[in-house]
Amino acid sequence: MTAVPERQRADARRNYALILAVAEEEVATRGAAASLEQIARTAGVGSATVRRHFPSRRALLEAVSRERIEALRVRAHELAGRGDARDALLDWLSDVVAYCVAARGLAAALAYDADPVHENSCATTLQDAANPLLLRAVEDGAVAAGVTVADLITLIVGITLATEHYPDPGAEAARLFRLAVAGFSPPPAPRTSPARPG
Amino acid sequence: MTAVPERQRADARRNYALILAVAEEEVATRGAAASLEQIARTAGVGSATVRRHFPSRRALLEAVSRERIEALRVRAHELAGRGDARDALLDWLSDVVAYCVAARGLAAALAYDADPVHENSCATTLQDAANPLLLRAVEDGAVAAGVTVADLITLIVGITLATEHYPDPGAEAARLFRLAVAGFSPPPAPRTSPARPG
Repeated sequence: MTAVPERQRADARRNYALILAVAEEEVATRGAAASLEQIARTAGVGSATVRRHFPSRRALLEAVSRERIEALRVRAHELAGRGDARDALLDWLSDVVAYCVAARGLAAALAYDADPVHENSCATTLQDAANPLLLRAVEDGAVAAGVTVADLITLIVGITLATEHYPDPGAEAARLFRLAVAGFSPPPAPRTSPARPG
Repeated sequence: MTAVPERQRADARRNYALILAVAEEEVATRGAAASLEQIARTAGVGSATVRRHFPSRRALLEAVSRERIEALRVRAHELAGRGDARDALLDWLSDVVAYCVAARGLAAALAYDADPVHENSCATTLQDAANPLLLRAVEDGAVAAGVTVADLITLIVGITLATEHYPDPGAEAARLFRLAVAGFSPPPAPRTSPARPG
């Protein structure tokens, strides 16, 4: 380990905080199309400095999403033992919808989930946090056994990406989420066991 | 009207066909991030020529999607009077899923739907074509009365955008589509009338 003077560490922390703040604004404005070059220009630092902190677009999106991911993780733990299992799961998923609508970069960060080369720490964190909520809902028969947290997060990511050009994205995203919860055309003959996605 | 020599018109048609073919490849590779400059370079024409044909990204995406939109329009008419109303609607929507998965630019073109400034001719064409299918399904009680073709297309666009990084996008998109059809957590007390999205 190299000894780094306290003063130099403090400078580096401030530098990172500035770049992160600029990155948050750029991602809020441009979503997944955020430009590392523009972040460097606005922060008044070199491109190499920005790339040292965010070596890829994915790293950038994850960094600006970290606080929101943490808030959703905490929320899942709060809801885990509380009330009706279906209500608890749907409450949490509605929060994911609201967060994705409010923060354009979050849906984009989560959309990288399926990339088989890299582990997506955002999606993994949310999956681990929400798994107990989902398992309880499945045990209650409120959700079919084959459904995964990844399915539900991907569905929400899609809904928020597809509604971001709407005049009121939040209202349309919430509407489509309710449609997916209830099903827009459930099978005609009601079954006693919950329908499994085929 | 200016008289244009036949030879010149034939040249212009060939030129447009070349640019459109190059544009289709570029959109297939890069989706909504397709670059007009790259299309000009590959086609060996000036940027101004490409911009005359495609004044905006939206115009580009619509142009490369035109044949697929037409095929979906024809398919909706074929299904309109045929068999069970729910099956006909779901068959058509499954085709929309498959087309969006196969052609990256199609979902992006349809995602512009909500832009209040421009009319989206792709989405409008599909809505007009699919409305009879939806109305018949609503009359049959297979779909709640408040649901619109725009809702269903937006849902499909979202599903295909969110699954495009998956190793097998088609399989995951079809799986999530079935989940949205049946509902991943329908309300616990089954009702005799179809559930309305709240």
